[in-house]
Amino acid sequence: MQLTRAADYAIRVMIHLAAFAPGTRASRADLAAASECPEQFLSKVLQSLTRAGLVISHRGNTGGFELSPAHRDATVLEIVEAVEGPIRLNVCLGTDDECHRQPWCSAYHVWSDAQDALTAVLRKATIDELALAEVQARSAQGVSNPTKAN
Amino acid sequence: MQLTRAADYAIRVMIHLAAFAPGTRASRADLAAASECPEQFLSKVLQSLTRAGLVISHRGNTGGFELSPAHRDATVLEIVEAVEGPIRLNVCLGTDDECHRQPWCSAYHVWSDAQDALTAVLRKATIDELALAEVQARSAQGVSNPTKAN
Repeated sequence: MQLTRAADYAIRVMIHLAAFAPGTRASRADLAAASECPEQFLSKVLQSLTRAGLVISHRGNTGGFELSPAHRDATVLEIVEAVEGPIRLNVCLGTDDECHRQPWCSAYHVWSDAQDALTAVLRKATIDELALAEVQARSAQGVSNPTKAN
Repeated sequence: MQLTRAADYAIRVMIHLAAFAPGTRASRADLAAASECPEQFLSKVLQSLTRAGLVISHRGNTGGFELSPAHRDATVLEIVEAVEGPIRLNVCLGTDDECHRQPWCSAYHVWSDAQDALTAVLRKATIDELALAEVQARSAQGVSNPTKAN
């Protein structure tokens, strides 16, 4: 029961991009350094984020990746699910293949409540707030914040 | 981010055993049928539960598996961790290999809060209560309850 590395890196990338002014683009190499993710692996993560519309990919000399203006307040849940697919703590929590034990299975309610509790926390945390908190925490810790001209 | 099949089966087995009177033994075949788990796979699950002291294994003609009397009120969290090891929603939540980003990483708090929310639900649910709820739900649904002479 563990988050994938891809989802972890996706959150790092999104927080990094959200710390910049809207419209700022960052190269894949910059994002790999900031998220401490191998570039090749990050390509897959960026593909998932782009496909979900959370990140916009620009080609060419002035290209790079920017946070989608419409998704600066994306939630951690949205990002995790963009990378991993819908969170289902147990296979029985899917809507399409209902388990025949469900009408009487008491564990079902535990898995369901646990999933609700987990996703509620992830749904409450938004990227813009996390980016702001991180900038403040880095300043307080004397760690330089990333700066980038558009 | 999904429970392993082994942990799912472990909970089914524990609930099944907890529905019997204390001291009742069930064979591996019975438990496999009740949990709808392939017998060979269930052996590994039972090994984990026995090693954790949650289940007692008896050899010989009158042998079988019984719920440890001291653990009739085991929590779902204890059982999942007996099978899967400690729940760590992200690698950074381990105590032994602290991430150097932690002092300023804002995502860390989200993973930590999410893990706390998840484990709180699993810690609140005990096997004896789940077994009782299941017996009642099966009766209400007209599904026969397992009976077993000691």
